Amino acid sequence: MSLDIFIILCYMSSILNNVLKTYSWGYLMKIFEWSPIEYVSMISRDREVEYNFASGSPDPSLIPVKEFEKIFQEVIEEYGYRAFLYPGAGGSSELVRNIDKYYLDKIGVSLRSDEEIVIVSGAQHGIKILSQILVEKGDIVIVENPTFWEGVYPIRFHGASLRGVSIDEEGLDTYYLEKILREGLKPRFIYLNPTCHNPTGYVMSIDRRRHLLEIAERYDLFVVEDDPYRPVSKDPPPSLKSMDRSGRVIYIGSMSKIFAPGLRIGFVITNKDLAEKIKILEQHDFSTSTFLQLAMSKALEKNITEALMKRCSEHYDMKRKILLEALERYFPGRYTRPVCGFFNLIYVDKDPERYVEKAIERRLLYVPATRFFVENPVYSIRIGIGLISSEKIFDGIKVLREIFEE
Amino acid sequence: MSLDIFIILCYMSSILNNVLKTYSWGYLMKIFEWSPIEYVSMISRDREVEYNFASGSPDPSLIPVKEFEKIFQEVIEEYGYRAFLYPGAGGSSELVRNIDKYYLDKIGVSLRSDEEIVIVSGAQHGIKILSQILVEKGDIVIVENPTFWEGVYPIRFHGASLRGVSIDEEGLDTYYLEKILREGLKPRFIYLNPTCHNPTGYVMSIDRRRHLLEIAERYDLFVVEDDPYRPVSKDPPPSLKSMDRSGRVIYIGSMSKIFAPGLRIGFVITNKDLAEKIKILEQHDFSTSTFLQLAMSKALEKNITEALMKRCSEHYDMKRKILLEALERYFPGRYTRPVCGFFNLIYVDKDPERYVEKAIERRLLYVPATRFFVENPVYSIRIGIGLISSEKIFDGIKVLREIFEE
Repeated sequence: MSLDIFIILCYMSSILNNVLKTYSWGYLMKIFEWSPIEYVSMISRDREVEYNFASGSPDPSLIPVKEFEKIFQEVIEEYGYRAFLYPGAGGSSELVRNIDKYYLDKIGVSLRSDEEIVIVSGAQHGIKILSQILVEKGDIVIVENPTFWEGVYPIRFHGASLRGVSIDEEGLDTYYLEKILREGLKPRFIYLNPTCHNPTGYVMSIDRRRHLLEIAERYDLFVVEDDPYRPVSKDPPPSLKSMDRSGRVIYIGSMSKIFAPGLRIGFVITNKDLAEKIKILEQHDFSTSTFLQLAMSKALEKNITEALMKRCSEHYDMKRKILLEALERYFPGRYTRPVCGFFNLIYVDKDPERYVEKAIERRLLYVPATRFFVENPVYSIRIGIGLISSEKIFDGIKVLREIFEE
Repeated sequence: MSLDIFIILCYMSSILNNVLKTYSWGYLMKIFEWSPIEYVSMISRDREVEYNFASGSPDPSLIPVKEFEKIFQEVIEEYGYRAFLYPGAGGSSELVRNIDKYYLDKIGVSLRSDEEIVIVSGAQHGIKILSQILVEKGDIVIVENPTFWEGVYPIRFHGASLRGVSIDEEGLDTYYLEKILREGLKPRFIYLNPTCHNPTGYVMSIDRRRHLLEIAERYDLFVVEDDPYRPVSKDPPPSLKSMDRSGRVIYIGSMSKIFAPGLRIGFVITNKDLAEKIKILEQHDFSTSTFLQLAMSKALEKNITEALMKRCSEHYDMKRKILLEALERYFPGRYTRPVCGFFNLIYVDKDPERYVEKAIERRLLYVPATRFFVENPVYSIRIGIGLISSEKIFDGIKVLREIFEE
């Protein structure tokens, strides 16, 4: 099939998906939709890309490739064939221990005595399994509006309707949340990415965090804190998990942004009952590699984390500043001002899905973010500065402006 | 918690599970059950084991650890940071190409022009995603009786009721299958493990394979061929996939038994529509590591597969012969006669769940297999010869006899 036809088909299927949105097929909400991120990645495959604002990957220069080369050898020397056997459900006990011992305090996350760490194959795998456990058809789940499309796809797939609560520079609008709960809304849980929010780049303030936890207690709600950017951000506020006094926060951590996403290692912290259910459902897929769990465990033991966190947070902060300059110059007043993390939104006045191909012709990739809004969609573009080199950011934003100006 | 209390809790939860069996919680069959395999592995953790008949792992002496050590270095040299970025949905194009080019013909599996290879994080991950796509609540899925507990757990979880068709030395009883279909049973699909069946060790004959495919055409059914043992078995019969003329066979392949389960690499071959749905649902978890996909791709390119297949099939055949001798001596007339693969069943006259702890005291592990029967359960033990060394098999079976004799 020629690329043109493929693009047209992708585009048509994307329109079709928007029209059908969520068709119910049987008892599950069997929604088969390409994520806007995967969609851009597919249609740009084998095309030359100069400005990649689409990826959620960390900066290649920060991935500790050399360290892992050495660690991989050490794992094989130390464990031999045992690194190649089946992983047990719940994860390797070494890795669980080392996350507790060498990682949690560094990122400011606390583990209560009635809680456990469960290893998952990346945060996304954790969200999927939690959705399978928590969500029942017809449930309402509260998310930030806009939210992370891929994060909430499994939640929708498992039968929940999403209700969006808007987010501003202080994070989730907890006053509005309180209002709709007072009016009788009964959500199953609240899913949010409070620190370096994907896609706005906002950080939830400490007051709002406190307010959210009060509300969660009052209305007896679980809060799912999806928190991949904490280790790569400068002076992040305390995690919801560390402020939580009643064990309502389910914490999802990821090694993808600080170490590497190709290892597929993340973890969930939650109460023992839910932790056991996650482990039981991991019998469905066994998808976390034994070898890579042992490698990650060793990486934590080597105490390279602190230096890496410092390097990452400084580097991404520098990139963010370049981005802010470029945004102010080329899209004044039309963007969310990122505080940390990899992302922010630019608001545009044309449907960004229609300009993806034109951007690819200019060797630029972005993610149309309109579908990241679960309510009141706004034409917008998600800008990611993880993968793109700092040298390209300023020029890239200029090219983006040209694409949307013509 | 002390080990004793833990064992008691595990045992109680196992009894409770047997009592409740499948309680429906909302719209999914939210069955939270420990697999008999995981259960034995958990309660034996940190205990000394001399005779491990419980594991589904390949023989440690056959895992190409040295080769992978070299390959891992080569992957890092060749791909650098790119081996550490996010995997795309559907898998690395290199690995897809190399499975097609260097692997399928060696194992006697053919790819139709209207079909695709999709990489999954091990066969189990493939079964889970297929279940999410194919199964709707209330569906009936036909499986062998007994069947592989872990293989069918996701099928049950996603809402299907299992109907068992018995299996004998020629494989699935296709005549009985035909009878129940003629009587009006309308299953969603047939899941089977026709070559070196887990847990009986039987192999489906060519005549039965042909008959099954005829039936599938006549009654318009999908057949899911779960086929992990083909590459490690001596002269296996043709795969159902290679005999299939109408694209009804969904093939699930695994690298776990021939290379290593700790890599978590498997693949599914199916029509393009279903393949696309699998890729879309892989957006839920991204669980296959980029690095390990590239490593597996390189391993296939190096053409070590053929020598490995020969070594494995001879070694496991030798172990099987020792097992057969021991079975004949200590359990005459009370076992399924394995043809290939890692497993067989021993029939016992006492509930084998009650003897697990006693066996662990004798440093022996087995899997109680009663729950592998979806209909008409029979007290039985699954014997696995993958992990145990050949020197231990004979003595181990003797110890097992003593445990059940006292």
